[in-house]
Amino acid sequence: MLERYRSLAIDALLAGVPSGGPHYLYDLVSEYPRRWGKGLRAALCLAACRTFGGTLSVGLNAAVTVELFHNAFLIHDDIQDESEQRRGAETLHGEYGVGVALNVGNMTNLLALQRLAANRRALGSGIAWRLFEETQLMLRHSLEGQAIEVGWIRDNVCDLDGDDYYRMCLKKTSWYTCIYPCRTGILVATGPHDAVDVLDRYGWYLGAAFQIQDDALNLVGDFARYGKEIAGDLWEGKRTLILIDFMRRCTGDERERLVAFLRRTRAQRTAAEVRWLHGRLLAYECVESARRSARDLAAAAFREGQRALGPAAETEDGRFLLGLPEYVVERSR
Amino acid sequence: MLERYRSLAIDALLAGVPSGGPHYLYDLVSEYPRRWGKGLRAALCLAACRTFGGTLSVGLNAAVTVELFHNAFLIHDDIQDESEQRRGAETLHGEYGVGVALNVGNMTNLLALQRLAANRRALGSGIAWRLFEETQLMLRHSLEGQAIEVGWIRDNVCDLDGDDYYRMCLKKTSWYTCIYPCRTGILVATGPHDAVDVLDRYGWYLGAAFQIQDDALNLVGDFARYGKEIAGDLWEGKRTLILIDFMRRCTGDERERLVAFLRRTRAQRTAAEVRWLHGRLLAYECVESARRSARDLAAAAFREGQRALGPAAETEDGRFLLGLPEYVVERSR
Repeated sequence: MLERYRSLAIDALLAGVPSGGPHYLYDLVSEYPRRWGKGLRAALCLAACRTFGGTLSVGLNAAVTVELFHNAFLIHDDIQDESEQRRGAETLHGEYGVGVALNVGNMTNLLALQRLAANRRALGSGIAWRLFEETQLMLRHSLEGQAIEVGWIRDNVCDLDGDDYYRMCLKKTSWYTCIYPCRTGILVATGPHDAVDVLDRYGWYLGAAFQIQDDALNLVGDFARYGKEIAGDLWEGKRTLILIDFMRRCTGDERERLVAFLRRTRAQRTAAEVRWLHGRLLAYECVESARRSARDLAAAAFREGQRALGPAAETEDGRFLLGLPEYVVERSR
Repeated sequence: MLERYRSLAIDALLAGVPSGGPHYLYDLVSEYPRRWGKGLRAALCLAACRTFGGTLSVGLNAAVTVELFHNAFLIHDDIQDESEQRRGAETLHGEYGVGVALNVGNMTNLLALQRLAANRRALGSGIAWRLFEETQLMLRHSLEGQAIEVGWIRDNVCDLDGDDYYRMCLKKTSWYTCIYPCRTGILVATGPHDAVDVLDRYGWYLGAAFQIQDDALNLVGDFARYGKEIAGDLWEGKRTLILIDFMRRCTGDERERLVAFLRRTRAQRTAAEVRWLHGRLLAYECVESARRSARDLAAAAFREGQRALGPAAETEDGRFLLGLPEYVVERSR
């Protein structure tokens, strides 16, 4: 079902990208969407829409919108993190330079806004305005979450705990990956006057579980399936739950070495240091510990989803939504 | 009057930036607006609004919106061009890194969208939707213009002529600097059902004249007033009308040397080469030739403005609009 919803949204997304125009623009907007992705965000949106009485055609613009915002976010995020690989191939800025990639990210955001505006004709001005407001809120959370994360790296913040991580994760991941797709799916199905927040808690837990599994795959995944450079998060100095756990449990000497490592820029870090840190994270079982937290969060998402869906939990889409928590923590890519 | 309108818009812009939040976000959104800028775009919007019967308070949200988009554009453009100086100080990414600056640019765009949405309550849904549509159109032109320019640099395109330059300039500069501010100013003044394109030709000529003078100041300006590194465009390999003119008139040997220079990345270029090119542009009087074109464009903007404004040309705001063509080509910063 994930695959079916993903295809539906990505096909519609690609069909909506203008052809022609200057080089290095619309042709490159399609680059990341054409590479394989899970389509989780589009599927959440379409399933939420159907669960609350909408049709696929009613939800399609919203599903395409969230995938476009996601792809724009990936392009910009890869530039910010100086990432090398995305979805099994070179990042857009690695291949075409930062100047081109930043612009393509901006155009992808604009195409998302245009999709959003298309709901005015399709679903009326009331729903379209509410969608626009939901989008502003989602973008605010995402950019604030991103600012928290880049700020930690810039200031070399090393005294973080799980709560700090979860606050950042709610903003940076859960909101745009799960909460926003559910809210907009519900909104287009039920109209502008109903509550759209019934799946918020489900989405929050699901997003956190998703992010932690993503962080784990970055360290122990298989590149051929995961599609990003393994241990890239360590090269980037990302404050994952795994790294935070190690920070809090390591010896004084290890901490000193870690802080010195994190103080360097990405270019100054060496493969030997990354290997050392990678080994320490495994020796302390930080990945296993984080994955236990992810499974707890997935269980909480399941319970919250069941509570929110009520009898709709038994529909095809309800079952799909309730199957996602297990999927996000067991996936290998 | 430019100064008065600038202050009005920038004060409202700064007052609307949220306080608090994570570090390296809202505090940095205010960084470029706080540095001195001309405020041309806000002033065009407010003057167009008043000339067509609107009040300053009716036009203020639109004026703040265009200044926010402009500041976001500057932040991203500086990253794309690897510029070092902006408005007399270090660029945002130079000071805080690309990760932070890209995010601050995105947040500045979001604040622009929020300002735009604020018109719904103030001016009604009809005008607000039209503003949203105008904004989508402006963003499309700007991003396409930017793609043309980064594409020329990336592909080391050297067989350009004036028409290529003007097509790029219409999209990259004129639309968001002049045409969009005039259109949105007229729109909020006259309502959602009237034509908003009456100042398009004025704005197109004005924007081209503005851009050429900007390119000239980059080569012959005074850093203390101009605020960007002198000859920065040469370091960046920017295809200005000045450079294009030289490409078409230089000797075969000079052309060979120029093409080799442009083929290098910014980091590979040397001060000696930049000095040579700078000297050649002056020796061929390419700057003077481009400034003559700018003055012709300014005269055309004046004529088109006069024609479009009719009797309103005699109002205080009409006189201001008709004074801008001379201002943009005579300014020293």
